[in-house]
Amino acid sequence: MGAELLLDNVGRHISLNEEETAYLLSLIEFKNVERKQYLLKPGNHCHHTYFITKGCMRIYQCDSNGFEHIAMFGIEDWWISDLPAFLTQTPATHYLEALEPTEVIQIEKSDLEKLYLRVPKFERYFRILHQNAFVAQHQRIMQNISMTAEERYLFILKKYPALEQRISQKHMAAFLGITPVFLSMLRRKLAGK
Amino acid sequence: MGAELLLDNVGRHISLNEEETAYLLSLIEFKNVERKQYLLKPGNHCHHTYFITKGCMRIYQCDSNGFEHIAMFGIEDWWISDLPAFLTQTPATHYLEALEPTEVIQIEKSDLEKLYLRVPKFERYFRILHQNAFVAQHQRIMQNISMTAEERYLFILKKYPALEQRISQKHMAAFLGITPVFLSMLRRKLAGK
Repeated sequence: MGAELLLDNVGRHISLNEEETAYLLSLIEFKNVERKQYLLKPGNHCHHTYFITKGCMRIYQCDSNGFEHIAMFGIEDWWISDLPAFLTQTPATHYLEALEPTEVIQIEKSDLEKLYLRVPKFERYFRILHQNAFVAQHQRIMQNISMTAEERYLFILKKYPALEQRISQKHMAAFLGITPVFLSMLRRKLAGK
Repeated sequence: MGAELLLDNVGRHISLNEEETAYLLSLIEFKNVERKQYLLKPGNHCHHTYFITKGCMRIYQCDSNGFEHIAMFGIEDWWISDLPAFLTQTPATHYLEALEPTEVIQIEKSDLEKLYLRVPKFERYFRILHQNAFVAQHQRIMQNISMTAEERYLFILKKYPALEQRISQKHMAAFLGITPVFLSMLRRKLAGK
């Protein structure tokens, strides 16, 4: 069932024939991740990128004061990885942790490169995915420098309504770059409106 | 000479034969932009993406208080555009302004789509470019939420030493999301070290 979700996702951008589909399926592996289990920690070699078929993960960094800074959350139908580390094959600088019992499909860097060469359509697939990711990130950068925490919080609630129920206040605060106490204040203020 | 710079850039990631090169060249247009001239303003239709062959540009937004927030600078050998507007063909939300007399190569959205179909290698080229842009943006997001303005300023000086000479303090401050006065204080403090 996990493979179907991946094939659906791929099928939204490119059309694969049977042979190409079989080749993709020959390169992927399924993996179950328990809640609070890590797929990656800083310093690890980042062999894989992951497509989430069930569950929820977060990717984050810890600064020298021990504060966690969340780069992104991922739920079903999303790709997630320490992309800088995966792409440049340098040691990871992020933690990748499951927030719920999670199922992923993983693909190795070398296998992804083989896939690009044998089925160049995947260049298009990942070109479009990276484009979309760039646009979403761009929006986040502009919001971080131009919007208040309250405005950014409201934006997330509106854009990703499913996340609010699945993400703890602590993690939401770490994503917004504010303290949990400040997020509580915001929520009380918004509830009173 | 501008076309050579573009072909060099392309050649770093994919190999084109003569026919493919000729096709690319048939789709591009050269354009000169005067200092302080705009290629794009909010609300405009964003027809093109631009490859800078000479000069320096900035892409920015203006918030409701009139504060400018700079998304990125671009110099020779860089692509620049209001990418969200270009990709989704929705009205621009950014200003794209030349900071120096600038020369660009432009390509239209519909021509870029034709290029992808006729020379699929360009899927690979832009897949890699978008990947790199994603990684750079990711770094900026994590810095914005985890580093002080001083640390981010020092990072930019180190990563893009050429920019410091070409960008005014006002624009550098708008990029960092701080006031010019605060940037002056930082510079004085760093000079005294």
